[in-house]
Amino acid sequence: MATRVSEPAKTELDQLCINAIRMLAVDAVELASSGHAGAPMGLAPAAYALWDRVLQHDPADPAWPDRDRFVLSAGHASLLLYSLLHLTGYDLPLDELQRFRQWGSKTPGHPEYGVTPGVEVTTGPLGQGVGNAVGMAVAERILANRYNRPGHEIVNHFVYCICSDGDLQEGVASEAASLAGTLGLNRLILLYDSNGITIDGRTDISFRENVANRFHAYNWHVDGPIDGNDPDAVETAIKAARVETGQPSLIILNTTIGFGSPNHAGTSSIHSDPLGDEEVRRTRKALGWNFDPFVIPDEVNDHMRGAIERGRQAHTHWNTRLAAYRADYPDEAAALEKDLAGELPDGWEAALDGAHATADSAMATRVASGIALNAAADVVQSLTGGSADLAGSNNSTMKGRSLFQSEDQAGSNIAFGVREHGMGAIANGISVHGGLTPYTATFMIFADYMRPAIRLAALSGYPVIYTFTHDSIGLGEDGPTHQPVAHLMSLRAMPGLVVIRPADPHETIEAWRVALARRDGPTVLVFTRQSTPPLDASDARQLAQGAYAVLDCEGEPEIILIATGSEVAPTLEAGRKLAEAGRKVRVISMPSWELFDSQPPEYREELLPSAVRTRIAVEAGSGIGWERYVGLDGDVIAMDSFGASAPGGVNMEKFGFTADNILSRSKTLLEQSGQ
Amino acid sequence: MATRVSEPAKTELDQLCINAIRMLAVDAVELASSGHAGAPMGLAPAAYALWDRVLQHDPADPAWPDRDRFVLSAGHASLLLYSLLHLTGYDLPLDELQRFRQWGSKTPGHPEYGVTPGVEVTTGPLGQGVGNAVGMAVAERILANRYNRPGHEIVNHFVYCICSDGDLQEGVASEAASLAGTLGLNRLILLYDSNGITIDGRTDISFRENVANRFHAYNWHVDGPIDGNDPDAVETAIKAARVETGQPSLIILNTTIGFGSPNHAGTSSIHSDPLGDEEVRRTRKALGWNFDPFVIPDEVNDHMRGAIERGRQAHTHWNTRLAAYRADYPDEAAALEKDLAGELPDGWEAALDGAHATADSAMATRVASGIALNAAADVVQSLTGGSADLAGSNNSTMKGRSLFQSEDQAGSNIAFGVREHGMGAIANGISVHGGLTPYTATFMIFADYMRPAIRLAALSGYPVIYTFTHDSIGLGEDGPTHQPVAHLMSLRAMPGLVVIRPADPHETIEAWRVALARRDGPTVLVFTRQSTPPLDASDARQLAQGAYAVLDCEGEPEIILIATGSEVAPTLEAGRKLAEAGRKVRVISMPSWELFDSQPPEYREELLPSAVRTRIAVEAGSGIGWERYVGLDGDVIAMDSFGASAPGGVNMEKFGFTADNILSRSKTLLEQSGQ
Repeated sequence: MATRVSEPAKTELDQLCINAIRMLAVDAVELASSGHAGAPMGLAPAAYALWDRVLQHDPADPAWPDRDRFVLSAGHASLLLYSLLHLTGYDLPLDELQRFRQWGSKTPGHPEYGVTPGVEVTTGPLGQGVGNAVGMAVAERILANRYNRPGHEIVNHFVYCICSDGDLQEGVASEAASLAGTLGLNRLILLYDSNGITIDGRTDISFRENVANRFHAYNWHVDGPIDGNDPDAVETAIKAARVETGQPSLIILNTTIGFGSPNHAGTSSIHSDPLGDEEVRRTRKALGWNFDPFVIPDEVNDHMRGAIERGRQAHTHWNTRLAAYRADYPDEAAALEKDLAGELPDGWEAALDGAHATADSAMATRVASGIALNAAADVVQSLTGGSADLAGSNNSTMKGRSLFQSEDQAGSNIAFGVREHGMGAIANGISVHGGLTPYTATFMIFADYMRPAIRLAALSGYPVIYTFTHDSIGLGEDGPTHQPVAHLMSLRAMPGLVVIRPADPHETIEAWRVALARRDGPTVLVFTRQSTPPLDASDARQLAQGAYAVLDCEGEPEIILIATGSEVAPTLEAGRKLAEAGRKVRVISMPSWELFDSQPPEYREELLPSAVRTRIAVEAGSGIGWERYVGLDGDVIAMDSFGASAPGGVNMEKFGFTADNILSRSKTLLEQSGQ
Repeated sequence: MATRVSEPAKTELDQLCINAIRMLAVDAVELASSGHAGAPMGLAPAAYALWDRVLQHDPADPAWPDRDRFVLSAGHASLLLYSLLHLTGYDLPLDELQRFRQWGSKTPGHPEYGVTPGVEVTTGPLGQGVGNAVGMAVAERILANRYNRPGHEIVNHFVYCICSDGDLQEGVASEAASLAGTLGLNRLILLYDSNGITIDGRTDISFRENVANRFHAYNWHVDGPIDGNDPDAVETAIKAARVETGQPSLIILNTTIGFGSPNHAGTSSIHSDPLGDEEVRRTRKALGWNFDPFVIPDEVNDHMRGAIERGRQAHTHWNTRLAAYRADYPDEAAALEKDLAGELPDGWEAALDGAHATADSAMATRVASGIALNAAADVVQSLTGGSADLAGSNNSTMKGRSLFQSEDQAGSNIAFGVREHGMGAIANGISVHGGLTPYTATFMIFADYMRPAIRLAALSGYPVIYTFTHDSIGLGEDGPTHQPVAHLMSLRAMPGLVVIRPADPHETIEAWRVALARRDGPTVLVFTRQSTPPLDASDARQLAQGAYAVLDCEGEPEIILIATGSEVAPTLEAGRKLAEAGRKVRVISMPSWELFDSQPPEYREELLPSAVRTRIAVEAGSGIGWERYVGLDGDVIAMDSFGASAPGGVNMEKFGFTADNILSRSKTLLEQSGQ
């Protein structure tokens, strides 16, 4: 087929399919007057080679567990993915592409997990997809090592990821890539769209590194640069990467952004602007594309929908193999299926029940977390996780399990290194892969480092458990550089997230129960470095309501004290003194705003009666937001500055988190309110 | 001098000085029962070589502008720095080392800018210091190119940074290092403490990359690994790195963590635990150190305080050269001195005054920001900054200035690449270097990517201006992956930060005025993608009070409506309709909580009378926190979910940010309050 732009020779059908992808992107952006056609135009041949010739997937069942995973880390190229999903027969009709970026469509501006059939993971914020892909490749190996048996390769798939220059500039991708090389993740194949252009112009104004050499240094197999317009070369490179053992692979593709656009190809102007009628006409001509917008020639549809039959066969074959596996290994098969369904095994709640006895003494909630985690992990095989190099401090190691290493990919303790952001993105990938229950651990101060990953989990509903220890100025000597102040409130401000800051060892165990039970979104668990006295274990189950009274009075209270975490103990002490002085006092432990706010109005009104306005909140974090519960007439004892380097107890005293100060402020408040 | 541990031969005096550093760290950690002695023990010989033989500094004047900068990115090794500062004669007496990590001391757990004389920048959260050092090296070159003249090398210094394995695992360091190579920052010399140990054990459980090759790939000069116990080798490597032209340098030091401790050297146990009495005794013996805790032999003091006289001479010589420069180039010298003092040149306010006329029409506040920035930049030469690859969208380019590039290091527009976190850390480094006024730009969604850097600026009071455009669901089609929801409130929750979200072009200009005038801390400026109608220009100066009435009534209002940014316009419209219907209404534009909260109580009470409880807040962000101004009886129209991919106007309507909905909710509230 003659085209006016120069490309490596290919069959007419291949060329037609490739141009179909390109023109769907062009026409959808044009119709929406918004979006990014340039990257899909440049990537179409490589993506076509991958999807048409290599990718194992079943368009009729996007949830087939043993499918290859495809991650479009360069999420702004969403139309590349939407076009491929449409053309290969997923439930994504043309009219959805025509509603690109419109309210309620299945084709949002960037790919969103749960919105579009076949979209594996939400991408767009650059670098995240690379981390997600690393996580998926970890998950595949853990499950393969756990469940495969001789002659039964029931878990056996690859993870493909397309990334851009921008992805590779992001630190989160660097972190994940370094770890992937260390862990020898040979199921991971990363295709790098090297087009020399970013939004601000030529990449070399800000990016002159030798990417191939960088990935060599990370212990990756590196191929290329190869011509991204040559699907045969791409196919060859991918197949070579698949047989590489022991290393993840990077395939560098030299591409032209906006390929086919006579005036804008290879320029930054095409990155994120529609081409306009005239240039679209020229592009059609240059590509030899004689079809109207959204018209796909039959031969393209016929050919690309071959994926449906190939997928059906592969999936059927796998079903047959699964049946054979089930016959030989019924227990393993049952466990695998339960894991893949995201169900927890019987007995997990009993395991946590049992942990209360172990945790019934004064201890840091981080220590209680280690007890809860290990109690759960004894039953919940799918638990997988670790720390960003603070495993001892975080109490995040599952005892009796090995470390996931290049040499032992069965391990489910993961040493993420000092890479919080990568850890977050990898945990998201493990989660969205399916079959595992990921958790992470670090100091709470570093929640900020991984916040973009937490946000994507919250947006997309990945049930990841993020644990953070050393949760306030109470951590002491490390000082304000390491003392979170804004973190709790910043996490509460994020929709889709449940944040829990337990007050004692028992609440800690119950916090883990809530987190493990939550299957439709992420949970943040926040723990102290310092010791907390145990509250009444029989009350702790009320943590699930988010807030409950730990001290109460007859009838309507004169004053309500609310606290979380390590501040519950001094607040309770102040409450008791007020009660001893004859005051009608209620003290509330409020480990989770989100859980409390989702209770029925009656419960909330009963616990926090509208008529009682003399309220005081106590939390060693930013006070912004506590007016939600104490209003304009209450008081908030909180941090309105950063902390200090001093022993934790000294900090708590200097910043006012003592029973005496809480008592004093309570009395003042009672006086002000005329009581 | 005989020691029982094996080290490369050195003079007795050198060995004594090195051991003094080691033992100050050991004894201070022991006294505090907290801290990290292991890294200082391993790094002492290299740091001694740098500080005793190379570093140009003046202990009597830590603010000497042309001093070399020293950044301890591995901030947990703070005692290395404190020991060096004490021994070389800074105003840091021994008793401060004895109060290590205690309330009110000058020796916090991690180095803090502004607390300890000679500490250049706050470090501890890993990776940040590497980015800060890159920023300092950028600043040095910009100032050198701007102010030096033939025969007058008035700006001419180096930036040395010591980093750990953990620093190099962090993505922020990767981002900064890649950019440093691209920009050819030859004044930057990074010493990498490769000790093979992290907190969780051997580094190779999570970190097997070839660091040397990675930095080669970034276009760095790489030397080593060399023996970190050999100060001569370290000195030679540093001096070789200084003559490298056109590249930043990495010197890899093979060191032993906890060197000298017979039982713990080379193990992770020494990373962050005191040694204990017995092991301290053994360490003294192994190092041949026969002095009591905190006793420094005279010959060590005599030798190391040589830095005072060397510093005095170097500084005096520079003063002489500055005088000669001032004689030949009086205008340049005056401008340099003003820049170094952090003062803005005359006329900068008039320039902003003039911008109002240009901005007096409906436009996005991001466009108005570009107008304000350029008006200021015409006068304020020290403005230096740019975008993380979104310069066009952010309107962040200073017209008529060149791009800082390897080939033209006079440029003060910086193309950071897609590296938000690196950008933040680099901007902090530029700021704390002195002489420049840095700003950054990206989409607001990516504030999360750079949040740890913003936090350190807020903690340490660096006057960086962080601008963020595309500030809400109003950005439209890019969808929820790119629409900030929690970001505004999360930034407001951070102490030390001033956050300003202007409502219109005029407020935008005034927001820049506040940001530029603020010299003791960072400012976040938040701008829309979409157009906003201009308010009354004559009111805009009230932005400095944080909140003011844009519509008012006679006497006490029945209802108060509060909004920020793009929500002010529909709120004002709703307010006008209420007024037309006979209601007594006040509408408040509240661009900055921090500025408002710092007003006198009288102003706040006048604007928001305690007696008026019928209040409604409108902001297209997380609603948590708005109860601070509307209390338990008010209403908040905000985002309690993520956004959607649709045109911005559609989003605003669907999520309730229309005049009609605000009007309707206001009426409901008035009814509920019985008015």
